[in-house]
Amino acid sequence: MVVPAPGGGLSGHRMTAHASLAAFLESGEGAPECEKDAITLDQADCLAPLPRTHTFLDGSAYVNHVALVRQARGAEMPARFWTDPLMYQGCADFCPGRSGYAADPEWGLDFEGEIAVITGDVPMGASADAAAASIRFVMVLNDWSLRNLIPDELSKGFGFVQSKPPSACSPIAVTPDALPGWDGRKLHGTLCVDLNGAPFGRVATGEDMTFDFGQLVAHAAKTRALPSGAVIGSGTVSNRDADGGPGKPIAQGGRGYACIAEQRMVETILHGAPATGFLQAGDTVRIWYEDERGDAPFGALDHVIQD
Amino acid sequence: MVVPAPGGGLSGHRMTAHASLAAFLESGEGAPECEKDAITLDQADCLAPLPRTHTFLDGSAYVNHVALVRQARGAEMPARFWTDPLMYQGCADFCPGRSGYAADPEWGLDFEGEIAVITGDVPMGASADAAAASIRFVMVLNDWSLRNLIPDELSKGFGFVQSKPPSACSPIAVTPDALPGWDGRKLHGTLCVDLNGAPFGRVATGEDMTFDFGQLVAHAAKTRALPSGAVIGSGTVSNRDADGGPGKPIAQGGRGYACIAEQRMVETILHGAPATGFLQAGDTVRIWYEDERGDAPFGALDHVIQD
Repeated sequence: MVVPAPGGGLSGHRMTAHASLAAFLESGEGAPECEKDAITLDQADCLAPLPRTHTFLDGSAYVNHVALVRQARGAEMPARFWTDPLMYQGCADFCPGRSGYAADPEWGLDFEGEIAVITGDVPMGASADAAAASIRFVMVLNDWSLRNLIPDELSKGFGFVQSKPPSACSPIAVTPDALPGWDGRKLHGTLCVDLNGAPFGRVATGEDMTFDFGQLVAHAAKTRALPSGAVIGSGTVSNRDADGGPGKPIAQGGRGYACIAEQRMVETILHGAPATGFLQAGDTVRIWYEDERGDAPFGALDHVIQD
Repeated sequence: MVVPAPGGGLSGHRMTAHASLAAFLESGEGAPECEKDAITLDQADCLAPLPRTHTFLDGSAYVNHVALVRQARGAEMPARFWTDPLMYQGCADFCPGRSGYAADPEWGLDFEGEIAVITGDVPMGASADAAAASIRFVMVLNDWSLRNLIPDELSKGFGFVQSKPPSACSPIAVTPDALPGWDGRKLHGTLCVDLNGAPFGRVATGEDMTFDFGQLVAHAAKTRALPSGAVIGSGTVSNRDADGGPGKPIAQGGRGYACIAEQRMVETILHGAPATGFLQAGDTVRIWYEDERGDAPFGALDHVIQD
């Protein structure tokens, strides 16, 4: 497979792609016969790999992210958050990686860079091993979050509705066998985020992931079968610092963050108040994954924030 | 339209039905041309009107239900619950009205009888009037709930995942213009629930609905466009007693309830503890809507609880 670079020269690469991912998923087992359908792909023409599906369940597998949220607001984190996955039911309508989002400036628009998997059929009560074996595709996902709407909405007790609009997906979803960084349960590599052209996050997707995708899919399938095409997200990728601390911005020698909120939390913990603002019209956000060879198999999400 | 009775003689009625509701929704405006596709319909053959869609957002429009939950556990209800709709993001994979659900007996399986609407395209930020005008179909929905999993899951703060498996839908969805009980924003009539063949609920769908469907759809569309085929639920239909009290079981001259939990709450409020158990294997649940003529335009949901 020829892999598109996330930076310049994004378009016109020769890619092997299946004509319809949904049709493949419905066909059952087996890898898609890619070579037959070899096409020239322009990422700017791509919708989300599954523009609409029936199920999006988003975990918080990088518990460091949750711990930071709690620490920043002085709240204790329940011990079971390290053993019982946090997960919310999200909007199963997905935007292209090249989309914008026209948020009211008061809503506090933020990105959340994640890894997500697309499953085949998963029976109710599947084990984590069976759940891991059901994974058909991997992709990158940006879980747009409206930070200023979240506290009020979560305080009502029923989870996110208005504060989590449709997520955007990388232009390309890749089968696990074509990903050298896939170990069967986690994806190893670097999730890269640039904000307005400057590095904002270079986080390690295979580290600090308390719950792997087998556990996340099994959690989602505990009381229901998941029909093929279910999308299960990792939640914001988040690393601790080498010394166990909350991490540092890239400018200070750290790995940075996969969402603005986390940088604000660390600023609050270290300096008493956040310094970085949420997204404004005209800001650009680029999110992509790089494997150890420096390849970007999912292409890149490229957002320009709209008025 | 010939309407199937909810009791005996459920099959073989001559119905007018559109060949594909999804295809109709994608075609845009206008009522389906039913007569062209007149078929003989057996409700037992019906899947959910939209077996899989991309969006299911379920409100709690009958705030009495929420007030009872709170009262039963001695918790105060925030005043804004009367002005700001409670809504959760649900599973957009729907079961037929004749399905069972094989719950672990420890999970505390319960039904929740609701009215739901299916929308056409709704732009982000639509007014309640525009949202009401977007409603293309109405149906009855049973929002299966696993009561014993809810407290732990909600205490994590991210809403329902495991505690709300896929809902079941009435075999038939009906366009608003074919429903004499539809006033443009609410459906007037009686939601009937029989448990093991005995009347359990005869609740008035047009009464005590604090938020109408225009308001619910507008709430759902505040920060996102809803593509056609979005399903928006009313939440459990729930009436106050004529004297403003929490309602009575049918056996005591009341209207009863559209879920077991509510009867248990009223038992707790009146007698200090619940007396009615949740569903067990072998129990039967029938849920249907009757209009003022005694017709049941959506057919009936008929469940036998599985082992």
